Amino acid sequence: MSGDMDKPLISRRLVDSDGSLAEVPSKAPKVGILGSGDFARSLATRLVNSGFSVVVGSRNPKRTAGLFPSAAHVTFQEEAVSSPQVVFVAVFREHYSSLCSLGDQLAGKILVDVSNPTEKEHLQNHQSNAEYLASLFPACTVVKAFNVISAWALQAGPRDGNRQVLICSDQLEAKHTISEMARTMGFTPLDMGSLASAREIEAIPLRLFPSWKVPILLALGLFVCFYAYNFIRDVLQPYMRKHENKFYKVPLSVVNTTLPCVAYVLLSLVYLPGVLAAALQLRRGTKYQRFPDWLDHWLQHRKQIGLLSFFFGVLHALYSFCLPLRRSHRYDLVNLAVKQVLANKSRLWVEEEVWRMEIYLSMGVLALGVLSLLAVTSLPSIANSLNWKEFSFVQSTLGFVALMLSTLHTLTYGWTRAFEENHYKFYLPPTFTLTLLLPCVIILAKGLFLLPCLSRRLTKIRRGWEKDGAVKFMLPADHMQGEKTSHV
Amino acid sequence: MSGDMDKPLISRRLVDSDGSLAEVPSKAPKVGILGSGDFARSLATRLVNSGFSVVVGSRNPKRTAGLFPSAAHVTFQEEAVSSPQVVFVAVFREHYSSLCSLGDQLAGKILVDVSNPTEKEHLQNHQSNAEYLASLFPACTVVKAFNVISAWALQAGPRDGNRQVLICSDQLEAKHTISEMARTMGFTPLDMGSLASAREIEAIPLRLFPSWKVPILLALGLFVCFYAYNFIRDVLQPYMRKHENKFYKVPLSVVNTTLPCVAYVLLSLVYLPGVLAAALQLRRGTKYQRFPDWLDHWLQHRKQIGLLSFFFGVLHALYSFCLPLRRSHRYDLVNLAVKQVLANKSRLWVEEEVWRMEIYLSMGVLALGVLSLLAVTSLPSIANSLNWKEFSFVQSTLGFVALMLSTLHTLTYGWTRAFEENHYKFYLPPTFTLTLLLPCVIILAKGLFLLPCLSRRLTKIRRGWEKDGAVKFMLPADHMQGEKTSHV
Amino acid sequence: MSGDMDKPLISRRLVDSDGSLAEVPSKAPKVGILGSGDFARSLATRLVNSGFSVVVGSRNPKRTAGLFPSAAHVTFQEEAVSSPQVVFVAVFREHYSSLCSLGDQLAGKILVDVSNPTEKEHLQNHQSNAEYLASLFPACTVVKAFNVISAWALQAGPRDGNRQVLICSDQLEAKHTISEMARTMGFTPLDMGSLASAREIEAIPLRLFPSWKVPILLALGLFVCFYAYNFIRDVLQPYMRKHENKFYKVPLSVVNTTLPCVAYVLLSLVYLPGVLAAALQLRRGTKYQRFPDWLDHWLQHRKQIGLLSFFFGVLHALYSFCLPLRRSHRYDLVNLAVKQVLANKSRLWVEEEVWRMEIYLSMGVLALGVLSLLAVTSLPSIANSLNWKEFSFVQSTLGFVALMLSTLHTLTYGWTRAFEENHYKFYLPPTFTLTLLLPCVIILAKGLFLLPCLSRRLTKIRRGWEKDGAVKFMLPADHMQGEKTSHV
Repeated sequence: MSGDMDKPLISRRLVDSDGSLAEVPSKAPKVGILGSGDFARSLATRLVNSGFSVVVGSRNPKRTAGLFPSAAHVTFQEEAVSSPQVVFVAVFREHYSSLCSLGDQLAGKILVDVSNPTEKEHLQNHQSNAEYLASLFPACTVVKAFNVISAWALQAGPRDGNRQVLICSDQLEAKHTISEMARTMGFTPLDMGSLASAREIEAIPLRLFPSWKVPILLALGLFVCFYAYNFIRDVLQPYMRKHENKFYKVPLSVVNTTLPCVAYVLLSLVYLPGVLAAALQLRRGTKYQRFPDWLDHWLQHRKQIGLLSFFFGVLHALYSFCLPLRRSHRYDLVNLAVKQVLANKSRLWVEEEVWRMEIYLSMGVLALGVLSLLAVTSLPSIANSLNWKEFSFVQSTLGFVALMLSTLHTLTYGWTRAFEENHYKFYLPPTFTLTLLLPCVIILAKGLFLLPCLSRRLTKIRRGWEKDGAVKFMLPADHMQGEKTSHV
Repeated sequence: MSGDMDKPLISRRLVDSDGSLAEVPSKAPKVGILGSGDFARSLATRLVNSGFSVVVGSRNPKRTAGLFPSAAHVTFQEEAVSSPQVVFVAVFREHYSSLCSLGDQLAGKILVDVSNPTEKEHLQNHQSNAEYLASLFPACTVVKAFNVISAWALQAGPRDGNRQVLICSDQLEAKHTISEMARTMGFTPLDMGSLASAREIEAIPLRLFPSWKVPILLALGLFVCFYAYNFIRDVLQPYMRKHENKFYKVPLSVVNTTLPCVAYVLLSLVYLPGVLAAALQLRRGTKYQRFPDWLDHWLQHRKQIGLLSFFFGVLHALYSFCLPLRRSHRYDLVNLAVKQVLANKSRLWVEEEVWRMEIYLSMGVLALGVLSLLAVTSLPSIANSLNWKEFSFVQSTLGFVALMLSTLHTLTYGWTRAFEENHYKFYLPPTFTLTLLLPCVIILAKGLFLLPCLSRRLTKIRRGWEKDGAVKFMLPADHMQGEKTSHV
Repeated sequence: MSGDMDKPLISRRLVDSDGSLAEVPSKAPKVGILGSGDFARSLATRLVNSGFSVVVGSRNPKRTAGLFPSAAHVTFQEEAVSSPQVVFVAVFREHYSSLCSLGDQLAGKILVDVSNPTEKEHLQNHQSNAEYLASLFPACTVVKAFNVISAWALQAGPRDGNRQVLICSDQLEAKHTISEMARTMGFTPLDMGSLASAREIEAIPLRLFPSWKVPILLALGLFVCFYAYNFIRDVLQPYMRKHENKFYKVPLSVVNTTLPCVAYVLLSLVYLPGVLAAALQLRRGTKYQRFPDWLDHWLQHRKQIGLLSFFFGVLHALYSFCLPLRRSHRYDLVNLAVKQVLANKSRLWVEEEVWRMEIYLSMGVLALGVLSLLAVTSLPSIANSLNWKEFSFVQSTLGFVALMLSTLHTLTYGWTRAFEENHYKFYLPPTFTLTLLLPCVIILAKGLFLLPCLSRRLTKIRRGWEKDGAVKFMLPADHMQGEKTSHV
């Protein structure tokens, strides 16, 4: 496949007829490229394939010509920048100053900065690469674009990978020209405003799941705490009190009692901020007041927290299905049977225990089933095909059903154990009682908000009504999600 | 993150230079907005960020100015609508008439109706909001647009959420202008025809999974019926005939015998309409005759029915994996062992039962594995990357393989039970025999269609051949799926 | 739903006013269609709905008029092609020559070839349909377009199915005209270069998962080999040596020992080519030298191999969860208990075996959990939302973690068995020892590349440094993936 890449897809006749192309500059302008690295070459290939006439400027044209598609004209920098109106600058930031000698020829032209700083460069320089370029060439119009596209996506064409090209510049017309070029090349341009946004755009390829960092740390923190707690109760206490060696539980059983705790607490943390926000709106008597920053951030990370909850829930299911595969399970069963025979008991059956487990397992499967629907509708391609009403039904209504089912799952697991003294090892209550606190608060609060007096007031506030004297601020984006359908 | 939203991304220099922008109206026209609600504010933010010059008309400019991005000019309604050619109407339908005083100033301009009716309004009014607006301002061109975009998607930019903007209007050029504006704002405009489509477009945000309603009701109905049937056979009959208390089976075992029945019947309902359609085409001798409405609707809901079948299949798998975790399973095993010892039997082994279960389980896993491939290729982002031949191979060929594997799974589960009298409780046949009827008919029919005489005739019909005297009608969309590759 | 399809979405007023539309040809040109098949009709519907004025040319206008939307004008071929500048040719290749009589009227116009050859036609003719059409009408400009869109996607509108329209032509302006038409119809045009690309574009709808063929054959080959090996060891050897009948293991147990071998070897085959490529770059001292073809293809199929590995891993998990559901499992347990009682042993417990299984199962679940993250980020809609750094973190770092976890899973499964003589049946070593070879080589190599001397050299080479005398070639697309962030 890659073998076909360097063959020019556009016929020689077209590319050679520079004269005629120059007459229709809006459709196929002659473009210049400064630089001969990977990105410059991929850019040249893509531009040539999209019908542009490409001139590459190099300090050593002879050596570099072989690296470019044959339809691109490789020449000296001075010659390359003389005729095209648009010049791509595909060199490292540290070499920008070496281009200053071209200043006169570049005057009045559009310079497209496609560079990405390294992590170190981005931290050291407070000025973006594009703004630095603009300061070196005050007579040019600098446009930041294409830096979020990989060299590979450029060369292979936009069928694979992301199609969005973020563009910013202080000059509207230049931005429009480059937007049209991006569109012709098969990408989707997105206007990001003035050149001051360049630093933000240059930071995008340096990101590593920024919205996942806090949720993942939260989940890991919860895991460590619950694991330690369960280890003390399930392994350490039997060892210290009764000298029973249950250390074999460390790799699997203790993990499997910890996972559902984390999943359950995370799920309740998805619905807690909504409850807090509603309470705040009720107290303030208006929705036009900004929430505190921590609540705002929390509201915006609900999707990530919910997906982590689902992930831990799935791991819990997998670990649970592994339980009967353990050797310890087999030994326990055989030993129980032997004990029964030796005790001369003919039939073992505890009706209450049987019922407890059947309901417990059934609720768990249903909770996971409902959560999986939430996870699937979080996929970008599915979320995009839903309207707000549908998305809210799945994420809010079905999500609350999942929380209820998980609570039933936890309650049937606990059964009467919370009230039996022998389950308080080292005076520590069973883990499931700890995890029940948050969800019960949420379910109680949701119940309260259904009371006619509160529910009516909340509906009024969300439709725009305000208590006298409520202070107004500009509304952050997230709080208006629920308002779309009936308000304008 | 949302904290950065209200800072103007475009530099003041650009926005203030209204004069120069007015000279290039096609690129950055001055746009007006009437209204000060959430949507108006998000619209203003997005327009400002996309390089437009925004004037907001308010009845109380002083009070509302603080709510809008600083780059937007908030003034009185009369002033706001005087200079821009495009005015967004972002007020409630009930306030449309209050704008009538602006009629003279608005004459000849493009009014963009972005409103969404509430469910109640939509049912009460037979005239869409946009058509009502057009009737109030006969001298204006009304364009319906942006109502399917949420205020949140507008403000955050089109990187999140759906990008498609449905546009309709009776005037082509106005539609073109607004399409270009949507494109500049980063959305993908989609022409929906004349203003008469406005009602249809306004109904979109009110939808709640319309294509899922019938399939979900069907699945729930099947579940209730099969659950009742299984409850009678597995719980009630033992209780009434032998006074055995098996009510503990209600939450898990009976559910788990019901789930595969529903999944299996739903899967066969995916392939039945195709068989009926082929039979109908064979009898009629043409494909250019419309199918009856019920068959048409059925054919169009195959995807949803198939996904529900997969969902129930997965639940069945999860429930089955829970079986050995039950307390009742443990007790049964121990009791069996004790019984063996007491009976002085040394080795328990029924070769036939062993084979039955191994094949049964293996077929089940394979059927689920194949179904999961079908489910994955139903994801929009994957379905879009397949050509028709690939999509049809997965959905039709692999789907039929899944049906065959499920049939083998069911047959090995049943083994010889269908022919043993003691399995007919209350004279009711075992559930699996009931579910086998439909799939066997389908497999038989598919086999028949492979006979040379029928297969040849069907191929001819699908390539466009017609029996003499076959009546022609306009072809509904769905029936031509199979014809794409070789026909034009 | 399909019932609304044939009602014209655009008002009669617009479509009838041909005169005024003709004045704005760039926005709504009159277009002609030759042909009356399914595709011609869907095309007409879509064009009418997008605001074009459509004239259909038929040899029997009276008979075919009823098949087209009422807003389309159906007439004789000669009349249909007289006024529009763009004519869609929607007839079979074998009828192209019958259009030659229209040559004079078509001269100077744009002919859009929308046809798709059958598999047979594509193999027989070395000239694409579009090039054949161009040879018949030398006075026309032929554009290849819309053939990758199904008739169904055309009629239903681009909300469902793929939106990308591949376009090629030798004439830039014609390509631009058709691109704009495609955009107005709601599709995303993609320029594929000159008409010589038509054959490539015509081959796209004939493809059946070309990138999956080799990986699937590889996986099936591995499955057959490992299955045979395991069958000999687990079933045949006990039968021949001890006359034990273990044939019941054929449908499930042997499959379940084979699946993890295939999954594990496939996973290591994902990371092997990267190691080979790095070794090659180290030896050559440059990255600007093309890899051998087999390595290139291997590097490009890593995603497919990885997904197959995940699929086999999931099947392995499902089969494993089925193990305690088997009748043979129940019999074995009961027989073990009976044996214990008869041997008068009171407690069965092998601490080492217990530990082995707990670690083994835990590692397996974790490996599958990590692999599932890789699989999810392979979904197009998620992969597109990641930057290169994020994608590489998941696929490369997390993928290597999954390989390490799988290796631990395999090692704890094996425990000391590799060193016990009684596990060498027929002198054949246990299967897991065979599968460990490749992954251990990879882990070792990855460890070597971390040595300062090699790691520094590799980093230098990947940043563009070259050993003296290293020969340069044009770089294939795939090798530059890692270079985007810091290079330009």
